[in-house]
Amino acid sequence: MTAFGFEVFATDGAARLGRVHTAHGPMDTPAFMPVGTAATVKAMTPESVASTGAQTILGNTYHLMLRPGAERVGRLGGLHEFMNWRGPILTDSGGFQVMSLAKLRKMSEEGVAFQSHIDGSRHLLTPERSMEIQNLLDADITMAFDECTPFPATPEQAAESMRLSMRWARRSRAAFVDRPGYGLFGIVQGGVYPDLRAESAEALCGIGFDGYAIGGLAVGEGQELMFQTLDVTTPLLPADRPRYLMGVGKPSDIIGAVLRGVDMFDCVMPTRSGRTAQAFTRRGTVNLRNARHQDDPRPLSENCACPACRNYSRAYLHHLIRSEEILGPMLLTWHNIQFYQDVMRGLRAAIAEGRVRQFAAQALADEALGDIEPL
Amino acid sequence: MTAFGFEVFATDGAARLGRVHTAHGPMDTPAFMPVGTAATVKAMTPESVASTGAQTILGNTYHLMLRPGAERVGRLGGLHEFMNWRGPILTDSGGFQVMSLAKLRKMSEEGVAFQSHIDGSRHLLTPERSMEIQNLLDADITMAFDECTPFPATPEQAAESMRLSMRWARRSRAAFVDRPGYGLFGIVQGGVYPDLRAESAEALCGIGFDGYAIGGLAVGEGQELMFQTLDVTTPLLPADRPRYLMGVGKPSDIIGAVLRGVDMFDCVMPTRSGRTAQAFTRRGTVNLRNARHQDDPRPLSENCACPACRNYSRAYLHHLIRSEEILGPMLLTWHNIQFYQDVMRGLRAAIAEGRVRQFAAQALADEALGDIEPL
Repeated sequence: MTAFGFEVFATDGAARLGRVHTAHGPMDTPAFMPVGTAATVKAMTPESVASTGAQTILGNTYHLMLRPGAERVGRLGGLHEFMNWRGPILTDSGGFQVMSLAKLRKMSEEGVAFQSHIDGSRHLLTPERSMEIQNLLDADITMAFDECTPFPATPEQAAESMRLSMRWARRSRAAFVDRPGYGLFGIVQGGVYPDLRAESAEALCGIGFDGYAIGGLAVGEGQELMFQTLDVTTPLLPADRPRYLMGVGKPSDIIGAVLRGVDMFDCVMPTRSGRTAQAFTRRGTVNLRNARHQDDPRPLSENCACPACRNYSRAYLHHLIRSEEILGPMLLTWHNIQFYQDVMRGLRAAIAEGRVRQFAAQALADEALGDIEPL
Repeated sequence: MTAFGFEVFATDGAARLGRVHTAHGPMDTPAFMPVGTAATVKAMTPESVASTGAQTILGNTYHLMLRPGAERVGRLGGLHEFMNWRGPILTDSGGFQVMSLAKLRKMSEEGVAFQSHIDGSRHLLTPERSMEIQNLLDADITMAFDECTPFPATPEQAAESMRLSMRWARRSRAAFVDRPGYGLFGIVQGGVYPDLRAESAEALCGIGFDGYAIGGLAVGEGQELMFQTLDVTTPLLPADRPRYLMGVGKPSDIIGAVLRGVDMFDCVMPTRSGRTAQAFTRRGTVNLRNARHQDDPRPLSENCACPACRNYSRAYLHHLIRSEEILGPMLLTWHNIQFYQDVMRGLRAAIAEGRVRQFAAQALADEALGDIEPL
């Protein structure tokens, strides 16, 4: 069994080209991990997800603990077996989603008591239970249980929240079942306050994790403040461990974060957009519901290898969306995941060749051109 | 360019093993053609449809003329190009769907005036316009424009309706644009009345078609009356032309009709069932929404080559359905189309080996066993 680990092959400024090793195989970084909330990347088969080059997918502890249930997934052989995903799986801790339940939850030092949004049943999520669930799910990468500090938050609120997360991080570390090839990541909190981020990073490094996530960003603070926070946070994290920016983001967010030394990303954007007729292209997003596509025989993207671009016209994709045909979300999700993987592949090649800043500049320039002209 | 044609390789009683040749390739018969109403077999990519062994799919004139519009599909290169289906396509005439509009339509000798169910726009469908639309769609097999006689109908109603369809069949033949590899099928009507079926078959043979469909069945008359009607109808149709039973049906309907000399079938049942959690198996249909599947690690069918059966448990399929995940309809539709194609493959092999009656008896015996026991 492979030990969990991280290699760095090349750096270009702060950007790193690397590889995470897990029990279920490697993940080349910088990596984008598609989100498979309820044990499926929505509207995709696992084979299609893998065909885009995606190596790792995400599962959500909150959703899976409620349905089908962590113990059930465990009895059925774990999440890889259950959903037929043979590569690495990262699960979140459940903290983020539980926090967003608002009136249905109650927090304490112990953890979070909440009611299921599905059937109203009562549950308690603690660092220990979160570790147990992620172990039952057989996650290659387990996330420490934390509170995602809301934005905006006063320095006092952010500090209190962050320190609770650090106490929970210590309990997560203690409860984590260490197995060869399986890793546990801590999550840096502290809002947009550099001193709190530093305090959090120091606390986590003191506990010691297999990787370090940066949480509490992409929650409304905007790209500039997010980048400023990364600028002061990533240098505080160990160079020999992967860095994961949670829930991010748009392609330009990802590219900017890679320039600042982040290695891993996840976001529902490509999948959710695919289900709402939004397609990512090098020249920005395209809304295929728009009537201007109805007679357009051109592919969505000329240089994309996904089936939506290889086999169909914009006119056909538009028709599928207007007709509310399932194949519309299927093809657009596939395309968007392919697009994200192509961006990551481009970033990895650029880092290897020492031209990541040029790559980033070109991507921004392409996007600024806007979508191709109507016919 | 291949000429449109039909070969019979073997017979076993009335059952025939054959091949239809079209401009877009062959179709081995007996054949089941999945329905792709709005230029997509719902929840499937064309590659997945083809992987099941399906060679021909259906398109619906009514839906396509309204959205995206026949002229638009024509400008975009026809239906094969538009939806990326490289095999044969059969289109219906629009008659059946227009008739079901009830209050929104008005019939005359000329044709049917109706309002779109999408936007209320007014349209006139005549034999001539139906031929024009199916030509624009580039259908390999065009269906004559007819009225599907409702059930029940008095002998007088059935006769009047059938004779109108025969006049429309003559106008369809005259308006059909004959191209190499493209065929036009007439449709026998006459309800459940043998003399009317005979009159209709004689009228159509007098006009001359590339194939003969049997319409107006599977509309509520029941399997026994359907088989009785086939018993008196198929012997009246030319042995050297394919016979197509429209809109049929359950596996046992298809098997019984093949025993009576029918070569081609279509039905929404496998696709529609797949979207409502119903899976076909040799031991009957299984409702995967049922809680008894929630912990069942066994595949849906042991001997099925589709991804739903190869890669997943009943527990996972159940989870997808309960979670309303798109992958549920995707996998169950795939399975159901695979199941139907496997039945057709079995029928073809059995006819070739002169044991089609044994095959039919075994299929009925298997189905009578009912679904496998709960764990």
